[in-house]
Amino acid sequence: MDTYSAPLRDIRFVLEHVTPLSELTALEDLAHAESDLVAGLLEEAGRFAAQAIAPTNREGDQEHSRLVDGEVKTPESFKRVYQQYVEAGWGAVQHPAEFGGGAFPLTVANAVKEMITSANMSFSLGPLLTTGAVYLMTHHASDEQQQTYLSKMVSGEWAGTMNLTEPQAGSDVGATTTKAEPADDGTYRITGQKIYITYGEHDLTDQIVHLVLARLPDAPPGTKGLSLFIVPKYLMNEDGSLGERNDVQVVSLEHKLGIHASPTCVMAYGENSDGAVGELVGEPNDGMRLMFRMMNDARLGVGLQGLAISERAYQQALDYAKERRQGRGPTSEPGEQAPIIEHADVRRMLLTMKAYIDAMRGLTYANAHALDLAEHHPEEAVRDQQQKLADLLTPLSKAWCTDLGVELTSLAIQVHGGMGYVEETGVAQHFRDARIAPIYEGTNGIQALDLVGRKLPYDGGAFVKGVLEDIRAEVEALPDACSDIAERLAAAVDELAQTTEWLFAHRDTINDVLAGATPYLRMFATVVGGWQLAKAAAAAQQLLDDGDTGTFSEDFLQAKLTLARFYATQLLPQVHGLAPSVTAGADDLYAVTAEQLAP
Amino acid sequence: MDTYSAPLRDIRFVLEHVTPLSELTALEDLAHAESDLVAGLLEEAGRFAAQAIAPTNREGDQEHSRLVDGEVKTPESFKRVYQQYVEAGWGAVQHPAEFGGGAFPLTVANAVKEMITSANMSFSLGPLLTTGAVYLMTHHASDEQQQTYLSKMVSGEWAGTMNLTEPQAGSDVGATTTKAEPADDGTYRITGQKIYITYGEHDLTDQIVHLVLARLPDAPPGTKGLSLFIVPKYLMNEDGSLGERNDVQVVSLEHKLGIHASPTCVMAYGENSDGAVGELVGEPNDGMRLMFRMMNDARLGVGLQGLAISERAYQQALDYAKERRQGRGPTSEPGEQAPIIEHADVRRMLLTMKAYIDAMRGLTYANAHALDLAEHHPEEAVRDQQQKLADLLTPLSKAWCTDLGVELTSLAIQVHGGMGYVEETGVAQHFRDARIAPIYEGTNGIQALDLVGRKLPYDGGAFVKGVLEDIRAEVEALPDACSDIAERLAAAVDELAQTTEWLFAHRDTINDVLAGATPYLRMFATVVGGWQLAKAAAAAQQLLDDGDTGTFSEDFLQAKLTLARFYATQLLPQVHGLAPSVTAGADDLYAVTAEQLAP
Repeated sequence: MDTYSAPLRDIRFVLEHVTPLSELTALEDLAHAESDLVAGLLEEAGRFAAQAIAPTNREGDQEHSRLVDGEVKTPESFKRVYQQYVEAGWGAVQHPAEFGGGAFPLTVANAVKEMITSANMSFSLGPLLTTGAVYLMTHHASDEQQQTYLSKMVSGEWAGTMNLTEPQAGSDVGATTTKAEPADDGTYRITGQKIYITYGEHDLTDQIVHLVLARLPDAPPGTKGLSLFIVPKYLMNEDGSLGERNDVQVVSLEHKLGIHASPTCVMAYGENSDGAVGELVGEPNDGMRLMFRMMNDARLGVGLQGLAISERAYQQALDYAKERRQGRGPTSEPGEQAPIIEHADVRRMLLTMKAYIDAMRGLTYANAHALDLAEHHPEEAVRDQQQKLADLLTPLSKAWCTDLGVELTSLAIQVHGGMGYVEETGVAQHFRDARIAPIYEGTNGIQALDLVGRKLPYDGGAFVKGVLEDIRAEVEALPDACSDIAERLAAAVDELAQTTEWLFAHRDTINDVLAGATPYLRMFATVVGGWQLAKAAAAAQQLLDDGDTGTFSEDFLQAKLTLARFYATQLLPQVHGLAPSVTAGADDLYAVTAEQLAP
Repeated sequence: MDTYSAPLRDIRFVLEHVTPLSELTALEDLAHAESDLVAGLLEEAGRFAAQAIAPTNREGDQEHSRLVDGEVKTPESFKRVYQQYVEAGWGAVQHPAEFGGGAFPLTVANAVKEMITSANMSFSLGPLLTTGAVYLMTHHASDEQQQTYLSKMVSGEWAGTMNLTEPQAGSDVGATTTKAEPADDGTYRITGQKIYITYGEHDLTDQIVHLVLARLPDAPPGTKGLSLFIVPKYLMNEDGSLGERNDVQVVSLEHKLGIHASPTCVMAYGENSDGAVGELVGEPNDGMRLMFRMMNDARLGVGLQGLAISERAYQQALDYAKERRQGRGPTSEPGEQAPIIEHADVRRMLLTMKAYIDAMRGLTYANAHALDLAEHHPEEAVRDQQQKLADLLTPLSKAWCTDLGVELTSLAIQVHGGMGYVEETGVAQHFRDARIAPIYEGTNGIQALDLVGRKLPYDGGAFVKGVLEDIRAEVEALPDACSDIAERLAAAVDELAQTTEWLFAHRDTINDVLAGATPYLRMFATVVGGWQLAKAAAAAQQLLDDGDTGTFSEDFLQAKLTLARFYATQLLPQVHGLAPSVTAGADDLYAVTAEQLAP
């Protein structure tokens, strides 16, 4: 049965022992996020996700969001659940107190996001986009704009969207052609078409605040000529009430492989007038920089989707493997069918899922932790280092977790055998839903280029080398009981360090570096995942050695040790198989023409 | 655009230079399959697949097969195309001449199947099942049964099905409970329900011949008590015309992730009577052995699906990558958007697909080649060796090619970016369709157990070691120009040999062997794929050295060399990352309980 239980123990273990929340609450800014309060918050969020949202998932998949007379109808259950979401304030967790937010660390907000996404990925996308818009506007909008929009967006009463993509401008955002003409009253008239706009139109909120990239007259070509505009669905009256309808319309919805309940819109600006009314955010031609500001947050949010959908599919596979009986297990009586979880190969699939899930949770939570420190630490040097760490981890979170999301939901289907291929079972939906995440918010190929092209060069390479040294130091400090893990992790870090050296040595032939980007990202993330699991294992061993395991059972801690060892000895070694393709260079890739590749 | 071109050059290259058809036509039995005849046949089949069948693929996906008043309606276009398929005799290629078949080698028939499957996987499944039924009946049915059914099944005028699975008997076929009671007239009365019956009911043929596993009264438990029955949809009159309707009915169709146009039926036997009328095939309680006889053929057929769907998706991705322009390529002018095929990361995706496709074609065609020799070689010792080789290769073909089918169709989506996730593009269908193949005809986990549990022990292990020695000898004989390939392949064979030794050394703790089965299968197949590509490279190099490239262009042969080198240097090394999980044993898999794995 496709139910969902919030993995609160696993989440709490990471927040207490792997990327400690206590390091954040030690800061003045975040002192209020004390551990009991957070524990209560997460429990409540877990209950809401599991009991209220999770049951809407399959229904939403079947019902779809639909375009009816120019309006988007979301599934019936979404309206009810979204109302509860707003009333409980789940959208406000990470936002500043001055606009009614909870001012919790991103690390905590992301734990809430993880659970809501597991419960219903299609549902979670609306709030995700609103959060991104709030994040951007909190940092870059004028006081007046903030006063006008933010409180209601923080509460979730109003929604936000991101409008970047156009037919000719996908990964190549600089090719944007949507126009913005200054009007006499200081506003702008926006004309053009945007595609793939998630929740571009819907019936969950009274107002939708679109953030739109467009080009001013005489702007320079490319990304340096893009400006950012607020284009509200309804113009705002001076008293803060909603005024006339703005000239922004949904033209059509995409029919997609998955996330059926999430409306993916083609949006038309200014089709019935001289343009939709927009307000400039920040400076002219500075739109791309502002967008980049929210990109870490958004990309990490998509990385969380890989984790979240894997967790959901894993739980379903585990339940099925416990119930379904086929064949004899190692200890079953003749003529008796054993639960398939007793078969070694099924166990391999389940442990592979669970170990990767723990590794993804470690990575993404560490990523959020770094962003929190980068924003709130009192010392500039620490903020700077942590921002760089977050910048380095973000492409790993986004690409690795979303690739794994596809791979692990596929494994969950496989555990189900024939039942997995039947839509009623529900596990195929996770596989279909998961498949978008490697594509949007910067394809995983773009993430890999970002890693090797932008992040590795930080401090002339010294930064990434420092991170590898930090991992090495932690490996050396692992307790003796974790020697299997330490040995494999040390070898993997060495391999990663060597390929990193190779990339630096070839930086003058940039295409050789780009050619190895994707396998390099996979290597790097696999090592960071192993590092996080090693930290978890060390903490578990420490608690066991102390004889005081606190709120965690001995069984739970032993499982953490097993999962870390399984990962280190059976999954981590894949890095050695990937290294040769990182350092192969571009020659063979370009040794064939398109004609030679054709049938 | 989702069109399909038959890869005739690639197929012909394999048949001429990698697994030479000439070795088959040298045999008396197969002397008639001369190369010009085969070339013409394949061209004609390629034309039919590309022009007639391929255009029905998306339509079928949208239209589905539907259950209407107890009858299954296949998509409209299927009826027209199936008629053409029968008229041209495409279903008869591999079957014996005495029933109107073409008596071509399986290797040739499989090339035809590959193209028809690429064109429309849902369509291809009906013929696949009929072929399996004919294969079984040719070898095991009585003369009378053969006379009654085979000619019309060979021509395709009648269809065949395989009825094994029941709700409690999936991988565990021995749990079958469908009953067969002897009747006074020498026939049997079959009662029970079967699930997941592909093309169990449809409107493409007048008659459907069901092969059904059922249990006689007092049969021993498990697989040793299963008997095989022919249960025709319409009883046969003595004059060979169709008589009364038999009591076999379709109860419902599954709603599946993909292969929507292929009706997956729940079948009820004997619900409205004392049983459906069935005829025993072969001896009582011998049904499982008869089924095994056709399993190599059927499993290889499913392996071909992985190849075929990858080829289709690859062609679409390649076309898109040539058309779609985004960003600057290594050589493009400022301000100019390059076709994305110019980007290194997109090239990596395309070459990965193409190299694996060539490797899969090498493996599956070698598998068919071995089956042909096993059936037709005059010397018993050769037949025996080739049957063992085919037995060894079959789980590799089935599992590896179908896993790759999912992975490569996923890559094809990724090449498309956002367009890949939109159903209209068509590439998402390939991904959905591909996902069934790792499940049916023995899950890929079952294939891995078959490999380590049944195939490795042949001749006390001497057989598999001999195969590895054969590969080593071919590696050593590679020309100097292929030294990169030789070096990597030799290292991979060594790694495979070591893990094989480990498996033999642990045969007394069988669960340790089973625990490593899946990664071992992946290793083994990856090496065999590299071996086939090395053979292709050596042949290409030889033709180039000779200065007489025959009907192949120099460009084509150079591409084969590049693809083999790319595979050997960048994909094959993954075996080194897999080896540790083969030899890890079962301990960690069983160190956690189901409760410890739960959230």
